[in-house]
Amino acid sequence: MKLFTTMSSNSFGTLFKLSTFGESHGTAIGGIIEGCPAGLKMDFTFIQNELDKRKPGQSKITTQRKESDTVEFLSGILNGVSTGTPIGFIIKNENQKESDYSHLQETFRPGHADFTYLQKYGLKHTAGGGRASARETACRVVAGAIAKLILKHYKINVCAFVSSIKNIEVGDDWIERKNSIVQRKKEKNLVRCPDEKIAKKMQELIEQTKKNGDTVGGIISCKIENVPAGIGEPVFDKLQAELAKAMLSINAAKGFEYGLGFDSTKLYGSEMNDIFTSDKNKNIKTLTNNSGGILGGISNGMPITFKVAFKPVSTIMQDQNSVDKNGKQIVLKGKGRHDPCVLPRAVPIVEAMAALVLADLLLRNRSSKL
Amino acid sequence: MKLFTTMSSNSFGTLFKLSTFGESHGTAIGGIIEGCPAGLKMDFTFIQNELDKRKPGQSKITTQRKESDTVEFLSGILNGVSTGTPIGFIIKNENQKESDYSHLQETFRPGHADFTYLQKYGLKHTAGGGRASARETACRVVAGAIAKLILKHYKINVCAFVSSIKNIEVGDDWIERKNSIVQRKKEKNLVRCPDEKIAKKMQELIEQTKKNGDTVGGIISCKIENVPAGIGEPVFDKLQAELAKAMLSINAAKGFEYGLGFDSTKLYGSEMNDIFTSDKNKNIKTLTNNSGGILGGISNGMPITFKVAFKPVSTIMQDQNSVDKNGKQIVLKGKGRHDPCVLPRAVPIVEAMAALVLADLLLRNRSSKL
Amino acid sequence: MKLFTTMSSNSFGTLFKLSTFGESHGTAIGGIIEGCPAGLKMDFTFIQNELDKRKPGQSKITTQRKESDTVEFLSGILNGVSTGTPIGFIIKNENQKESDYSHLQETFRPGHADFTYLQKYGLKHTAGGGRASARETACRVVAGAIAKLILKHYKINVCAFVSSIKNIEVGDDWIERKNSIVQRKKEKNLVRCPDEKIAKKMQELIEQTKKNGDTVGGIISCKIENVPAGIGEPVFDKLQAELAKAMLSINAAKGFEYGLGFDSTKLYGSEMNDIFTSDKNKNIKTLTNNSGGILGGISNGMPITFKVAFKPVSTIMQDQNSVDKNGKQIVLKGKGRHDPCVLPRAVPIVEAMAALVLADLLLRNRSSKL
Amino acid sequence: MKLFTTMSSNSFGTLFKLSTFGESHGTAIGGIIEGCPAGLKMDFTFIQNELDKRKPGQSKITTQRKESDTVEFLSGILNGVSTGTPIGFIIKNENQKESDYSHLQETFRPGHADFTYLQKYGLKHTAGGGRASARETACRVVAGAIAKLILKHYKINVCAFVSSIKNIEVGDDWIERKNSIVQRKKEKNLVRCPDEKIAKKMQELIEQTKKNGDTVGGIISCKIENVPAGIGEPVFDKLQAELAKAMLSINAAKGFEYGLGFDSTKLYGSEMNDIFTSDKNKNIKTLTNNSGGILGGISNGMPITFKVAFKPVSTIMQDQNSVDKNGKQIVLKGKGRHDPCVLPRAVPIVEAMAALVLADLLLRNRSSKL
Repeated sequence: MKLFTTMSSNSFGTLFKLSTFGESHGTAIGGIIEGCPAGLKMDFTFIQNELDKRKPGQSKITTQRKESDTVEFLSGILNGVSTGTPIGFIIKNENQKESDYSHLQETFRPGHADFTYLQKYGLKHTAGGGRASARETACRVVAGAIAKLILKHYKINVCAFVSSIKNIEVGDDWIERKNSIVQRKKEKNLVRCPDEKIAKKMQELIEQTKKNGDTVGGIISCKIENVPAGIGEPVFDKLQAELAKAMLSINAAKGFEYGLGFDSTKLYGSEMNDIFTSDKNKNIKTLTNNSGGILGGISNGMPITFKVAFKPVSTIMQDQNSVDKNGKQIVLKGKGRHDPCVLPRAVPIVEAMAALVLADLLLRNRSSKL
Repeated sequence: MKLFTTMSSNSFGTLFKLSTFGESHGTAIGGIIEGCPAGLKMDFTFIQNELDKRKPGQSKITTQRKESDTVEFLSGILNGVSTGTPIGFIIKNENQKESDYSHLQETFRPGHADFTYLQKYGLKHTAGGGRASARETACRVVAGAIAKLILKHYKINVCAFVSSIKNIEVGDDWIERKNSIVQRKKEKNLVRCPDEKIAKKMQELIEQTKKNGDTVGGIISCKIENVPAGIGEPVFDKLQAELAKAMLSINAAKGFEYGLGFDSTKLYGSEMNDIFTSDKNKNIKTLTNNSGGILGGISNGMPITFKVAFKPVSTIMQDQNSVDKNGKQIVLKGKGRHDPCVLPRAVPIVEAMAALVLADLLLRNRSSKL
Repeated sequence: MKLFTTMSSNSFGTLFKLSTFGESHGTAIGGIIEGCPAGLKMDFTFIQNELDKRKPGQSKITTQRKESDTVEFLSGILNGVSTGTPIGFIIKNENQKESDYSHLQETFRPGHADFTYLQKYGLKHTAGGGRASARETACRVVAGAIAKLILKHYKINVCAFVSSIKNIEVGDDWIERKNSIVQRKKEKNLVRCPDEKIAKKMQELIEQTKKNGDTVGGIISCKIENVPAGIGEPVFDKLQAELAKAMLSINAAKGFEYGLGFDSTKLYGSEMNDIFTSDKNKNIKTLTNNSGGILGGISNGMPITFKVAFKPVSTIMQDQNSVDKNGKQIVLKGKGRHDPCVLPRAVPIVEAMAALVLADLLLRNRSSKL
Repeated sequence: MKLFTTMSSNSFGTLFKLSTFGESHGTAIGGIIEGCPAGLKMDFTFIQNELDKRKPGQSKITTQRKESDTVEFLSGILNGVSTGTPIGFIIKNENQKESDYSHLQETFRPGHADFTYLQKYGLKHTAGGGRASARETACRVVAGAIAKLILKHYKINVCAFVSSIKNIEVGDDWIERKNSIVQRKKEKNLVRCPDEKIAKKMQELIEQTKKNGDTVGGIISCKIENVPAGIGEPVFDKLQAELAKAMLSINAAKGFEYGLGFDSTKLYGSEMNDIFTSDKNKNIKTLTNNSGGILGGISNGMPITFKVAFKPVSTIMQDQNSVDKNGKQIVLKGKGRHDPCVLPRAVPIVEAMAALVLADLLLRNRSSKL
């Protein structure tokens, strides 16, 4: 008998660490959070609220599949305070319609992981995505919410927003505004874009695209404020390297850049360099922030800024050619309840992953008086 | 006494693993390679040749600092064959001119890690970069070369090339040509760009920029051929996530994208999806390769393609404003021997990191008949 | 506000890995098993049966606390076969009598972890042991059972038994008998000692000790049969080093030895050395097995044998002096439902941990034709 | 071609981490130390002195093979102070007499790892032990010395001594004496046993055994003083579990016990329990220290005590039967320069590994004001 073995990692982080399990169509998904300091007050309303921003069925421009995505904590918390031991949690799967996917059992959906999972594990996983389903990211949002509670102690905050949908994009100035303002504005519309007018256009495009049975992608921008200088590790675990991995581990992400990113390739060094200066208190800052708050893999005290590109959702409501597992040509019908655009629901995931990276690197960086 | 503690990682990889040590101005840099299968024939000429592509002083468009960058293997190899035990190696530092950097001891160079290292470790490191120096990447090239020898057994090959310098860029067709052709062509010029005419323009731009005491950046494209379907891990250690981390851990890298990358945000799902098909032998392929050879974090058998953005080198031969460690305004003179453009020397580093990622994920993915 | 941070590990294993969470008095305990090969047939009856050997209330010489210890698998298994993705599971806590422990809230029980947890985390954990409770080992038995299913493919089997309780001990010949025989005999009595007569004496001692409100300890011996030569890693992860860590991580374990162990210090080298020989098929074996099946950290094909010492249970039904958290002298009353001797229930835990070590090292050791 | 792949670990520790490379007969052995806090003053004389206690040829009861074992630091230290970056170091191999081992190329030495390495890696390693040689432990002594410098800041000290050679043993009171006294006394004789009279007998036994061409083993006891309460991790990384792994990873170690160890199995719970009490300053202690300073995997503030059993050295100067790699019976001649007893040289190794464990767990346990 041939068994397929693989050294998978289902964990993220080193000191503050999340491990997850679960498929879209099992009993539950869940995870373990390690490294949460003992004595942290849990804000359960905040945590559930973060989950609600990711859950399906939240608006007319997301999938109409319904899941309440209620997190149940099983351990590591006593009287509302973390005990320092691992925080186990589950989120029950409520909406398991096997029939939705029965037509897919023997075929490979374009843009999906059906084919690659079969190649890797030697067996077809549960219909509808199994472990590859973005449903797994709900666990990241739970852990990310707890990471945000840790960051709050340091006054660090994370704010992501939709900066483009297809060709519709916001101005470059939005990344420079205060997170508190952007946060408030972006939650006023379904797209999670802080620019009211642009958001309206984006929403119209998404709705029209949905009508056409098609999908669109876009870019999410993110800023982390108040990160003290000195966070991040040199060499392999550079702050930007950890962020890049975190972001590219999100379903449908196709690219990552920080600071000026790809645009920096168009500048001369004399234009790109951020000049150091100091304020009247002799605090050292830079005049510009082309570097996105990171030098040599380590935060320099300026805001950390980055962008993530998301491809259009692969499941479209149109006929598509494909093959079955024997290589026979077939036609796939577009069926089921899917997102025409993943970005509004991806915003809390980007924030969660950024918070996980920061909380981990912050804890890895503690100075101690020996 | 206040000691600064940090949980740094100086290792890359899980099963095939490189750990490095060393600063630009110590006695030597070096590393340990773990997980190399026993019985692999070492090709020392090939390994040194890879190093030579990265070494300083190799051409008139790189820094004129000279280092022979000769690797000495200390363990793990017997009679030219790997023994399965860790491969220790060192590369001696030959060109340590402390005086080159004496003017920098108390000041922060724009774009460099002087300031952030001081914040992190509480002390000023060796002048000239210390651990933050790109000299550390020589160790990556050594390990990457051994990774390439492993990949060769699977017929997998990695080829990176310079696809743009500032605004000068090659056509999109180059990424689609066979690696063997691109490899040969790119090594015919100093820039490591496979398009002869474009390479000439790039070289001129670099030379002119150098004369102006300035620097330029650009983009490196990379393709990995013959990766079997099934390589890569779902969830956090997706193939693209590992590649992204690997690339963003390289000095001066500002962005990463794979497949269509950021451009995919401009397409509809119906345009983006790669349609599955099969050849006459019922081998399953896709008609296009917008996804860059990866679906759900796992290779699909198509070539893996990605791009990395590099900012212009931070050290320029011009006066720049800055501050010293007390926050006092100063003017930094441009001095020393530096690269006007890092990309020609970054090509072997991109290849090395890609090879490390692939070798690791390949070994993590072995099926075994129990 | 002072938060206590620690880098705890709640995981065991490298490639075949168990991570656990949960306290004795929360909603549930549980874990994640990673690295289980895809395609392994799950034998749920066997797994639950292993758990039943550990569960409280199973006989008159164990604690009378009742827990059904029913494992619920949440992911990683489809149609009774492992999918290669992480196996999440929970075991609900049924018997949470807070009142049993209310008298302990402010005091430190001798031999228990109340004091040390308070020092570590800065807060008193749940009464009755919290994360320090041996209840956590139920998760290890679940993972160990799955590890045994993997080992079965290699014909490897693990058998532990009680070889001494206080001064009552079995003959040295029992470790040399076939596991299949020992396995059958040991399950015929409540003590899990394969020697019927000795087992009877042990049971009498345990019962008498219980009447006296006291507790006893003893030694568990274990043998692993059919381990092929070549398993285990040189240097730090030697087979015996991993076993030692595994065993000393079990509650109440005080010592570990393999092969002749401490007795080997009484021999000359000429007496200790196992002489190599070969059978008629030229298979290489040793004439004796003083080394316990391991040479240089790697299995040599002979049975692996080791012993683990367990101290008497710390909770006794007698008055004991102690202090409260302010250092005030108090007298602790002996109350509650506890084991007079932990060894019968520790046998499946020793086997589980041994199986985890072997499965992990086996998977780490696969040869692959490149 | 068949390649043998294995996931070896050549690292020890999590936050304070040592990775080693090197064989007995290559150019050099060496390693990388990560996690050393920045700002630690290096005491090079102390470090070399620790190495000298382990080096061969130091006295007439050790092997007469000569190696100066001079450590060369290559990175991570600037002006005698740690910089926080990885400390790379090498120790050159000076005494490589291939001819000493030429008679062993095709045969398996009893008690040695020749056979198991061949099974694991598919090829015969360097003669004379290769990676399995205890020479590798020199690297541990280097890292252990630096760990001791860290521990010194916390006033923690580690002292190991030879407590038995074969049947000659010291009294139980020695483990209770102050480390400073034991340390001074044990270094006054060649055996490293603090009891002058017993040491003399031990030395005589070793010398007589050497004359007979035989070898002897024994026990090393170790005590760690001034460990604050709260160090160690619950569940898998218990303080005793990490110590057990550390000790069993040393060549020739056959057993580990802490506190009363195996003897605790002979006591009732009422005899074993250490009763908590408090001094006039309300500091909480225990009246006895049967538990060896650890409860629930975490230090309780009492001295940590443990013992390690070492088998007699496998290389004897007598003829022994064995087989060659084809299974043919042969007779091995006793040749070469070997230790008649490994314990005097193992004392610094036991201390080094204990220091590594403590330094790591100490750094993993830092509290931080968020």
